[in-house]
Amino acid sequence: MTTLGITNGVVLQPDLSVSKSDVLIDQSSGEIIDVDPEIGMSGDRQLDATDSLVIPGLINAHTHVAMTLLRGYADDKPLETWLREDIWPAEAELTAEDVRAGARLGMAEMIRSGTAGFADMYFHVPAIGDAVEAAGMRARLGHGIITVGKTDAEIESDVEEGIRVARKLGSERVSTALMPHSLTTVTETTLTTVIERAREMDVPVHSHVSETTAEVEPIIEERDVRPVEYARSCGHLQPEDFIAHAVHIDTEEIERLADTGTGVVHCPASNMKLASGMAPVQAMLDAGVTVGLGTDGVASNNDLDMFDEIRDAAMIGKLAAEDASALAAPDVVRMATQGSADCVGFESGRIESGAPADLAVLSLDAPHLTPAHDLVSHLAYAATGSDVRHTICDGQILMRERELLTIDEATAREEATKRAEELIARAEA
Amino acid sequence: MTTLGITNGVVLQPDLSVSKSDVLIDQSSGEIIDVDPEIGMSGDRQLDATDSLVIPGLINAHTHVAMTLLRGYADDKPLETWLREDIWPAEAELTAEDVRAGARLGMAEMIRSGTAGFADMYFHVPAIGDAVEAAGMRARLGHGIITVGKTDAEIESDVEEGIRVARKLGSERVSTALMPHSLTTVTETTLTTVIERAREMDVPVHSHVSETTAEVEPIIEERDVRPVEYARSCGHLQPEDFIAHAVHIDTEEIERLADTGTGVVHCPASNMKLASGMAPVQAMLDAGVTVGLGTDGVASNNDLDMFDEIRDAAMIGKLAAEDASALAAPDVVRMATQGSADCVGFESGRIESGAPADLAVLSLDAPHLTPAHDLVSHLAYAATGSDVRHTICDGQILMRERELLTIDEATAREEATKRAEELIARAEA
Repeated sequence: MTTLGITNGVVLQPDLSVSKSDVLIDQSSGEIIDVDPEIGMSGDRQLDATDSLVIPGLINAHTHVAMTLLRGYADDKPLETWLREDIWPAEAELTAEDVRAGARLGMAEMIRSGTAGFADMYFHVPAIGDAVEAAGMRARLGHGIITVGKTDAEIESDVEEGIRVARKLGSERVSTALMPHSLTTVTETTLTTVIERAREMDVPVHSHVSETTAEVEPIIEERDVRPVEYARSCGHLQPEDFIAHAVHIDTEEIERLADTGTGVVHCPASNMKLASGMAPVQAMLDAGVTVGLGTDGVASNNDLDMFDEIRDAAMIGKLAAEDASALAAPDVVRMATQGSADCVGFESGRIESGAPADLAVLSLDAPHLTPAHDLVSHLAYAATGSDVRHTICDGQILMRERELLTIDEATAREEATKRAEELIARAEA
Repeated sequence: MTTLGITNGVVLQPDLSVSKSDVLIDQSSGEIIDVDPEIGMSGDRQLDATDSLVIPGLINAHTHVAMTLLRGYADDKPLETWLREDIWPAEAELTAEDVRAGARLGMAEMIRSGTAGFADMYFHVPAIGDAVEAAGMRARLGHGIITVGKTDAEIESDVEEGIRVARKLGSERVSTALMPHSLTTVTETTLTTVIERAREMDVPVHSHVSETTAEVEPIIEERDVRPVEYARSCGHLQPEDFIAHAVHIDTEEIERLADTGTGVVHCPASNMKLASGMAPVQAMLDAGVTVGLGTDGVASNNDLDMFDEIRDAAMIGKLAAEDASALAAPDVVRMATQGSADCVGFESGRIESGAPADLAVLSLDAPHLTPAHDLVSHLAYAATGSDVRHTICDGQILMRERELLTIDEATAREEATKRAEELIARAEA
């Protein structure tokens, strides 16, 4: 057993209080052994947390990480136009090596901003899996299954790819899910089949649900039920499942999501940037829904800094509820840690004995975090990813004093730049 | 004449295009002499901008900078409750030295995030003026005149203080305004008197207008006109004037603001955090209103990073307009530079010959700014204040390679921390 002590910091406890404490990690098992002010220098190695706040490594519970290659490529367009005119044509040109490069760049960004784990829906998933293994992050990965615009043979092949990926990948840090893209981009037959296979394979189902009104109206028209009920009727919405967005849901749907224990991943930045709407997140919390946070893909954000999501969730949550006391600082910090962990099915998100050692250490030594009336408020409203000094996942240090240890940052940036240029050239050819 | 060359960067031009260029500054006059790729090393001194983007120094067009002392002190409450229960009792205990310390901390934060100029409404304004002179920033300062809850003698004294401050302060970088707090916290008589004095003194008038519905309804009830018309009837809304917030304004009021040439300072973060509402900013831009950006005070934000305001303005602007193409990246970048300058009455906000040399230089050498499809998009959506390498105001370097040159950061943080603790102890005693 090799132990690592995170010393001299202030620790965000599972109840969202903060207290001066050290954290002792077993690097062999990747678990937290103890959280105690008396640990001091007793670990085999130490990581300094003086003037710093130790928090659970943030969890980005819904993203498409390889979309970093499209950062800033097409902005300021409505979702449907943007997907059809810009994003899908570019994505059609993506190779596995492009996806690997995009994922590596995205993970560099996430590690630099204190994110230790994420859930990702995309394609060329084995390339993402390789990149995750190398970067040392925790991830739940799945192939986005889409039927719209495809022949029967293509659909069959897409479903097979989803199943193959979910079976083939998997390790200490990498888990999988079946990921039918959304309720309107996958036929009922395929959706039902995929969900049945997920149950047989004992993996969660992750999908986009009711991100825009354009995803709600056709379901009501065709089936005379709202999307959440339709999803449930297809076998979706088990406790291990998690859905992204859930912007346009009504009270009954909120209750159903609470009853079924389905996780909802709120993506506030993406919902604002695409003008999708304001999710009723305070109402979901009040009803007991498990809510996590995700950046969505970079192209609708345009970064992977979860501190932006935390702040955005508080800000837009107050507007949506028309109440400044809604989505208070502890609520949104909990969403980015415990909430996301519970959505995605990670054991992390809490700093306590026996939990996975996924942590981030933020420097408080900055004008924008002074004075220190309330550190949870600072996490919610004033901190940014660039305040993170160290990021740890599974007991291993991924970034130390802002230096990435598992990704060569310059190479990752160069390769992503080159591949992004070539990708756009192909897409626009 | 001593010249400073900013070399080897990419420059954001006044038309919001970007191009590789150097910038030559006359440090004696504080003006930009030339913007040209051929300047090279011809300046007396150089500031490196390799792999960097040179932008106009950002302008925070509405803040209460000394409120940094209250960062995180009271969050997640509606405006009226928050003011009455937390903010006003604490502010009642503020000394001039507290305000000086809070202003110094706030300027450290602004300089670190690329802001070169700001407009501030507060009290103990001479202490703020001293701090601004020492820090080297550009500012328009005024004493916030309030009549609510005051005796006639107190009101007279408050107005006198406003006039005294506006007369007494003033230098190359510090200008003043008369600042009646808002249409509902100042009586009609005082408002009219103050505005008359502003015209005599040839200084702008700055006030809060229609931030919440609670500021709109009483005016309609009492006067049967909406707030913008009431403000105009009191002599307000001349072209040199600027108002903060303007959240709850109708089409006719928007037209009036366009016709009168009055600047509107949009404060998106504050409007979200206090659940005040969504200002109709795209409609204002369409009507030709001059719109700038401000952080408002730290207590309703909770930081002074204008990159957050730029991003927030785009995000909430799309939601408000229910259109993802509203408030596009160039619109919001323009608001934080030219728009704010035009509101506040600064000549800065544009990088061109003859303009004040107020500049910020951002490093593009980061995963979250890779690839570089569109640097204006990066400014709007992905950059943060911590990407700023250098900040320059009036030709002088205020921060070089993230080291503050005019403020001792550690001392500023220590003093603010100590004073904030003592302030809260007094307020809660």
